Amino acid sequence: MPTPEAYLEAHQPRFLDELLDFLRIPSVSSLSAHSADVQRAGEWVAERMRSAGIEEVKVLPTGGHPVVYGEWLHAPDQPTVLIYGHFDVQPADPLGEWKHPPFEPVVEQGRVYARGASDDKGNMLAPIVAVEGLLQSTGSIPVNVKFLFEGQEEIGSPQLPDFMETHADLLACDLVLSADGGQWSEGRPCILVSLRGGCGIQIDLKGPDHDLHSGLHGGAIQNPIHGLVRLLDSMRSPDGRILVNGFYDDVAELSDVDRAQIAALAHDDTAYLDRLGIDAVFGEPGYSTLERQWARPTLELNGIWSGFQGEGTKTVIPEAAHAKITCRLVAHQEPDRIVELLTAHVKENMPEGVKATITPAGFSAKPYLIPHDHPGNQAAHAVLEKMYGKPPHYVRMGGSIPICALFLEHLGAHTVSFGFGLHDERIHAPNEFFRLDSFERGQRAYCELLAQLARLGA
Amino acid sequence: MPTPEAYLEAHQPRFLDELLDFLRIPSVSSLSAHSADVQRAGEWVAERMRSAGIEEVKVLPTGGHPVVYGEWLHAPDQPTVLIYGHFDVQPADPLGEWKHPPFEPVVEQGRVYARGASDDKGNMLAPIVAVEGLLQSTGSIPVNVKFLFEGQEEIGSPQLPDFMETHADLLACDLVLSADGGQWSEGRPCILVSLRGGCGIQIDLKGPDHDLHSGLHGGAIQNPIHGLVRLLDSMRSPDGRILVNGFYDDVAELSDVDRAQIAALAHDDTAYLDRLGIDAVFGEPGYSTLERQWARPTLELNGIWSGFQGEGTKTVIPEAAHAKITCRLVAHQEPDRIVELLTAHVKENMPEGVKATITPAGFSAKPYLIPHDHPGNQAAHAVLEKMYGKPPHYVRMGGSIPICALFLEHLGAHTVSFGFGLHDERIHAPNEFFRLDSFERGQRAYCELLAQLARLGA
Repeated sequence: MPTPEAYLEAHQPRFLDELLDFLRIPSVSSLSAHSADVQRAGEWVAERMRSAGIEEVKVLPTGGHPVVYGEWLHAPDQPTVLIYGHFDVQPADPLGEWKHPPFEPVVEQGRVYARGASDDKGNMLAPIVAVEGLLQSTGSIPVNVKFLFEGQEEIGSPQLPDFMETHADLLACDLVLSADGGQWSEGRPCILVSLRGGCGIQIDLKGPDHDLHSGLHGGAIQNPIHGLVRLLDSMRSPDGRILVNGFYDDVAELSDVDRAQIAALAHDDTAYLDRLGIDAVFGEPGYSTLERQWARPTLELNGIWSGFQGEGTKTVIPEAAHAKITCRLVAHQEPDRIVELLTAHVKENMPEGVKATITPAGFSAKPYLIPHDHPGNQAAHAVLEKMYGKPPHYVRMGGSIPICALFLEHLGAHTVSFGFGLHDERIHAPNEFFRLDSFERGQRAYCELLAQLARLGA
Repeated sequence: MPTPEAYLEAHQPRFLDELLDFLRIPSVSSLSAHSADVQRAGEWVAERMRSAGIEEVKVLPTGGHPVVYGEWLHAPDQPTVLIYGHFDVQPADPLGEWKHPPFEPVVEQGRVYARGASDDKGNMLAPIVAVEGLLQSTGSIPVNVKFLFEGQEEIGSPQLPDFMETHADLLACDLVLSADGGQWSEGRPCILVSLRGGCGIQIDLKGPDHDLHSGLHGGAIQNPIHGLVRLLDSMRSPDGRILVNGFYDDVAELSDVDRAQIAALAHDDTAYLDRLGIDAVFGEPGYSTLERQWARPTLELNGIWSGFQGEGTKTVIPEAAHAKITCRLVAHQEPDRIVELLTAHVKENMPEGVKATITPAGFSAKPYLIPHDHPGNQAAHAVLEKMYGKPPHYVRMGGSIPICALFLEHLGAHTVSFGFGLHDERIHAPNEFFRLDSFERGQRAYCELLAQLARLGA
């Protein structure tokens, strides 16, 4: 029998053909016209898993777009890992900016161009292919493996929390590997340590029954915009620290090791500012730009509106004023708790002469943090360092991907991000592409990682 | 010869017919489709002045809607008074809410219903009729009289400042009497002491080149809404005092007499709040509601907008944020100076990480103040007290009517407001009306006032 590596190398043309087939399915989860395509992509994945030798493969309903499950559980005394990815994609518009049609994949100079190539079809196909390579070459997998591929990641996985709760036994595992992620650069790997969560509120301040003439009434009653401005300004100090009582209480502070890992990354504030067209960074004192973006919570005003917005002048005291606020949260802040604190702050700082209605935003995501030296990360570190010839950077993400926190909550398992996308691959944009190098590297890396996890033991 | 009073009484049916004719002309100055009607109203006024015995009557071009001038200058050693009013009207919409068509006047129970009945055709016709009564009964007028009726009051008199400047000799006078105003109630007269002026700016704060993802960038750069909120909040203390440096420097403080005059008026905060649907008055400490509305300057936020205003959540850091501000000014604040102070405040209080553009508003009006015991007011006081059997209240107006300040600036003459409108006459609204009582009372009052002014001497 060949080695897994030799098997993978020998069958690479077929794997590429399969990837192209997969990319031809326009599985856009946000457009109801493509619901059948999302279903078809799930069935394609299920069939591909079966042909790889994965067992108990099922396309399972969720109430929305389906998930695909499969398993191979013949490694007694070894840990069980759940490999995660998604087969739905973002819409392709604006279509006019694509050099080739988004669902007619084209290979050029070692890159495959198509919607979903990097996010996430190329990445999620790699571990399936890797498992085929292991089974076809060695007849077994070093650890027990389960697969969970979903069809609703790009719309926020609305049915996934319920699905995880009702299928907790089926999905039970020691560790999750997410094939939806990336590396630092072509030459440098990375390990994702944290994701920020989020929550938000809308504040509606109500003043008089109707808009009033500012000449007749100005100076004698509270102006709702003035009230709102005062209220919002009370939430943040001039230098950028959040002043909402208790806001920082549950924040996991950065350790010296954490800060050293972040400081080791090449980040240039000047280049960053040039890219955004502004003159200065601004944020919580005592933290670097990357620390502020990755490891500190925020309170951002996303929208504000009241009164007259047209050309010219309208001398009105508006009847109401409105603001939308979202926070980015870090471990171990709880979104619901932060909404409570924001609400309490509004109540305690209410300007005179107006009334407030506070509406929690639909946006609510728990932050995620995995110890940088978690055994899963140690295994990934060893594999990545060997493959790239350089140790991985330890990075964080300022945005919110709720899935990692959901796995921790429902399965009690941490998630190691183990994908091979790169920053320039235009995910969510026209001319998305994936490097064939990364596709192959991902296959080999999964073979290595499953072996490495077996060495760590159960 | 009859007395002027007897003459007026005898000809009242004709005067009413004339008023109805005048009201049938839809002289809406803001609608270009009615430009010819405004011109026609001016010519109607000129003809009516001539028939009253007024001399040198001319319809004069202004570059916009015309003005009508006339004079009677045969009272040597007596003062010259300029009587002001306007023959243009507000648009009549919403038409569906009128009980009768707005330009088909109807008399019901002693009231004439039509657009412009109270504002200002009924009021401005009264002094013309009064002068006719004087000339037809006594052959003369006790003082020298000039008339200036304009056709662009309802659109802010854009050409009037230039017209006054170029016709300063023609309009030269000792005192202006404005027939565009009202009384306190049917049983109680009033004398207008001051009008607030105004000015304004728009602030545009610019942050990054484009909207940014709050997850990726949140916490590391200034959010333009945060910057705007901070800047606006810096302009006013929590208790309502304006914090812009120098803002109060030129304010004419209320004397004890002024405050006693205002305090003598029946104002009930509870009823006022009920009418607006709010719980509390709010404003500069140390002043009553009427003082705040009438005699203190304000800084009001009329509009604010930035970022996402739709349903749901968009986790964006907006590229820019905007606010519209107007101030109401009191004597002797200068609108241009206040705009300078606002601009300086913005520059001195600029939040980090954003840039500001400040645009002065088109709205700019000087405040107006006439000494309560000005000889013109003394004359009006004597006439009104005699006619109503009660002394007039001394009142102020929170809104801005630039014409009084313009007369003071260009002619060096104060304006005594001497009109007979009442608060319930629905000016600018459907079913505007004027009391025939007020029409007659205005005629008699002008006869009395001109005699009273002659007694005061030149």
